[in-house]
Amino acid sequence: MSTRLKNLVERLGGQLIGDETIEVIGIAPLHDATASQLTFLANSKLRAQAARTRAAALTLSPAEHEALGAEYHGARIVTDNPYAWFARAAQYFASLVAIPANPGVHPSAVVDPAAQLAADASIGPLVVIEAGAKIAAGAVIGAGCFIGRDVKIGAGTHLHSRVSFYAGCEIGARGIVHAGAVIGADGFGFAGDKGTWVKIPQTGRVVIGDDVEIGANTTIDRGAMTDTIIEDGVKLDNQIQIGHNCHIGAHTLMSGCTGVAGSAKIGKHCTFGGAAMILGHLTIADHVTISSGSLVPRSITEPGFYTGIYPLAKNAEWEKSAAIVRNLPAMREKIRELEKIIKSLSKESE
Amino acid sequence: MSTRLKNLVERLGGQLIGDETIEVIGIAPLHDATASQLTFLANSKLRAQAARTRAAALTLSPAEHEALGAEYHGARIVTDNPYAWFARAAQYFASLVAIPANPGVHPSAVVDPAAQLAADASIGPLVVIEAGAKIAAGAVIGAGCFIGRDVKIGAGTHLHSRVSFYAGCEIGARGIVHAGAVIGADGFGFAGDKGTWVKIPQTGRVVIGDDVEIGANTTIDRGAMTDTIIEDGVKLDNQIQIGHNCHIGAHTLMSGCTGVAGSAKIGKHCTFGGAAMILGHLTIADHVTISSGSLVPRSITEPGFYTGIYPLAKNAEWEKSAAIVRNLPAMREKIRELEKIIKSLSKESE
Amino acid sequence: MSTRLKNLVERLGGQLIGDETIEVIGIAPLHDATASQLTFLANSKLRAQAARTRAAALTLSPAEHEALGAEYHGARIVTDNPYAWFARAAQYFASLVAIPANPGVHPSAVVDPAAQLAADASIGPLVVIEAGAKIAAGAVIGAGCFIGRDVKIGAGTHLHSRVSFYAGCEIGARGIVHAGAVIGADGFGFAGDKGTWVKIPQTGRVVIGDDVEIGANTTIDRGAMTDTIIEDGVKLDNQIQIGHNCHIGAHTLMSGCTGVAGSAKIGKHCTFGGAAMILGHLTIADHVTISSGSLVPRSITEPGFYTGIYPLAKNAEWEKSAAIVRNLPAMREKIRELEKIIKSLSKESE
Repeated sequence: MSTRLKNLVERLGGQLIGDETIEVIGIAPLHDATASQLTFLANSKLRAQAARTRAAALTLSPAEHEALGAEYHGARIVTDNPYAWFARAAQYFASLVAIPANPGVHPSAVVDPAAQLAADASIGPLVVIEAGAKIAAGAVIGAGCFIGRDVKIGAGTHLHSRVSFYAGCEIGARGIVHAGAVIGADGFGFAGDKGTWVKIPQTGRVVIGDDVEIGANTTIDRGAMTDTIIEDGVKLDNQIQIGHNCHIGAHTLMSGCTGVAGSAKIGKHCTFGGAAMILGHLTIADHVTISSGSLVPRSITEPGFYTGIYPLAKNAEWEKSAAIVRNLPAMREKIRELEKIIKSLSKESE
Repeated sequence: MSTRLKNLVERLGGQLIGDETIEVIGIAPLHDATASQLTFLANSKLRAQAARTRAAALTLSPAEHEALGAEYHGARIVTDNPYAWFARAAQYFASLVAIPANPGVHPSAVVDPAAQLAADASIGPLVVIEAGAKIAAGAVIGAGCFIGRDVKIGAGTHLHSRVSFYAGCEIGARGIVHAGAVIGADGFGFAGDKGTWVKIPQTGRVVIGDDVEIGANTTIDRGAMTDTIIEDGVKLDNQIQIGHNCHIGAHTLMSGCTGVAGSAKIGKHCTFGGAAMILGHLTIADHVTISSGSLVPRSITEPGFYTGIYPLAKNAEWEKSAAIVRNLPAMREKIRELEKIIKSLSKESE
Repeated sequence: MSTRLKNLVERLGGQLIGDETIEVIGIAPLHDATASQLTFLANSKLRAQAARTRAAALTLSPAEHEALGAEYHGARIVTDNPYAWFARAAQYFASLVAIPANPGVHPSAVVDPAAQLAADASIGPLVVIEAGAKIAAGAVIGAGCFIGRDVKIGAGTHLHSRVSFYAGCEIGARGIVHAGAVIGADGFGFAGDKGTWVKIPQTGRVVIGDDVEIGANTTIDRGAMTDTIIEDGVKLDNQIQIGHNCHIGAHTLMSGCTGVAGSAKIGKHCTFGGAAMILGHLTIADHVTISSGSLVPRSITEPGFYTGIYPLAKNAEWEKSAAIVRNLPAMREKIRELEKIIKSLSKESE
């Protein structure tokens, strides 16, 4: 399963400086790489470490190539984005050992005759596919998935085990959905009436674009009357909750345990740290970054980096500061009083 | 699938003012409704928009009916709670297009002969039902559900795909449980012993009342020695965690990602914003509202609206305010010092 | 199903003081125990209640035994850790009524011929086991589980319904994994490239030690290049998310909804309250306790109890204090101004 450097740069781009016949069997971090592995330098603080690497070759940017100079003697692959090059090389090495899914329908699957399956789609054991569903070419439906009526699964999309797609929902091409994800459960909509709750039927769908990855046990609710939309290239980590009628812009990335309440409209190229919480009926501009654990209570109209986290401290210190936080209005009042006294003292002393 | 207004008010109540033969095919928000749809006015700020709606009819309160006067010329349905009326009308329209579940047991289901199934219950493909379980009339058990020993599923309750009920748990009538929910896993109970944890068997059950809705991937743990109780009409969104021995009062509503630690006793008619976190062994009164993202560390004895969230800011501003929050005790000390000096200065100047 | 006290102390240790022929049928809390149940005193505040218990016997520490003296007349079991003794006694009583799993493979399970199953392992209905997987002696695989290629399930480990183990992951002996848990989904790793995200293949595994319990719908991601490690005796509650390449030290306990970002290294014997959030690429020492709802943004090098939670208040009061929190830098500036004025006033008055 080894590959020559020449082959890699032909596939992935980059300028090879050094012996193009060198064989590599994989990729590893700087400090770990052996003489048969590639490595990469994506952080200039690690330049000295890079100079000492035992790796077969080093992928780095033109600027680092200059800066490293003659300190490093091995083969180099120079590319504008070494980290992305590394990711693509890792994908290539992973593809060499991947076990392809079996095309066709496992005999234990329960597939409605009115579902449409591409001939080379792979339907795993104990999958249920209802009438009207369409599974496109090369899609892989893992063991125990549930695909409701009229669901559409795009070409090359891979559902891992035990994913549920409710009726009418769809996902585009080249998606990845991890185990236990639930796409299209009812949004949380009720009208209060004399102390009880009347359910508002959730008749919209979830519509997911191309190249979307959805983490394990993540849930995306269907819209109330219109659809919940996840645009192309969105990446959602595990245990994320997306409420009904949300719209998540292209290439936005959300870390684990993030929650988005209903009807939030989130821009493109946003990044959310873990367990961020976004309230509903608000708009977030493109290119916004939210820190882990922060709650977004209102619209954000400008790109930027936003945070709202109570600082961690030893519990005894927290007890003291938290008690004052509660009493901040009293403290402000005290300062105003002092200010007045000082003013009058100042006048007296004039 | 169209319906006359006359038919709707006969079913759902309300006073019809206008042409009762008008046919409508559905319901939509004010700004979206076409001439063949109903709409509703539930927020007086939208009155001007309501006056201009193209909808076939407008549902509104007596007060709004007065206020709108002759500004709006179409048919009106006057009712005390237009939003609840809208919800029920939407349910009616949804029922017209709903595909009924097939009564009977799918041949791929694995049902113990000692389970009791109502003749008209619908047991989906690849369901597992263990001995002693009882599935009542009209219940729907979705694909891939697991129903443990002696579980009781009430009349008309609908379990979507891949729901697990552990042994002995029960849910009442007309419930809805979304995909991936887990009812009755062991509560989290351990006794520490010389640095290791000894498991405390969780021998209670989960007992859920009537008209309860449970969101996708929500988990409700069984009690340690007594039961975890969810009363009638409770609505739980997705990815909620309810610890062992909790008691959730009737008609309480919890938004997504909320967590409730063990042995919390929560009142009736409470409302929890998303990702609220309630500690264990505490009591929350009826009619309490908790803001999203707030942590409830102690009992709440009075109804009201409670909040505890660090305010969001640009990260650079947050850095400054958070640094001061840590040092609030020092700031308070400084203010006290200033106060003393001012006092002595004031005396001198007397 | 009753047992003599003599039998219990022979099995579980402790010094029996009183009639060893007393028969008990179970265990209950102090206030609940009947004359045929055992109870225990683990909290000295409940000593007066213990003196009045109707229980058949009281388990307590040597110190409480002394303190209680002649106030209590019934049988006693004296042991250093009454709560752990209670837990083990409860386990014993639970074992008397437990329904053993059936050894062998349910006919509806889909097991690859190249999987290795111990003869006495129990493979439930509609389980999928792929090639190369090894299920050790006495393991129980619940209904609807998915066991990927080359997965190893240790001796006596019990997977409840609908658990997924991705290819290559493993768990040791005597583990418990609750319904819906997902072990080994891809870690969340992407390299940014011109506004899109390039997936970094996640080729490590999840390796879980012995005596680990994992809650319902909890997710543990596989490592990117090396493994995610969960050491012996770790206890994870429901809906926990563990990122790729994390290392969780032995006997650490995490309550529900906790999240741990990638590459966090957490010590042994730590305790995390519910919904704690731990950022990635940090280290937490042994014996650290984190309060519920706290975010850990940096390494913690000293054992201790840490907290960072915005204090809960009535919403109107919170509005006031939160507004000041935002303006703390201005308040500090004001205090500095006052300080200067006071200094100059003080000099004048000298």
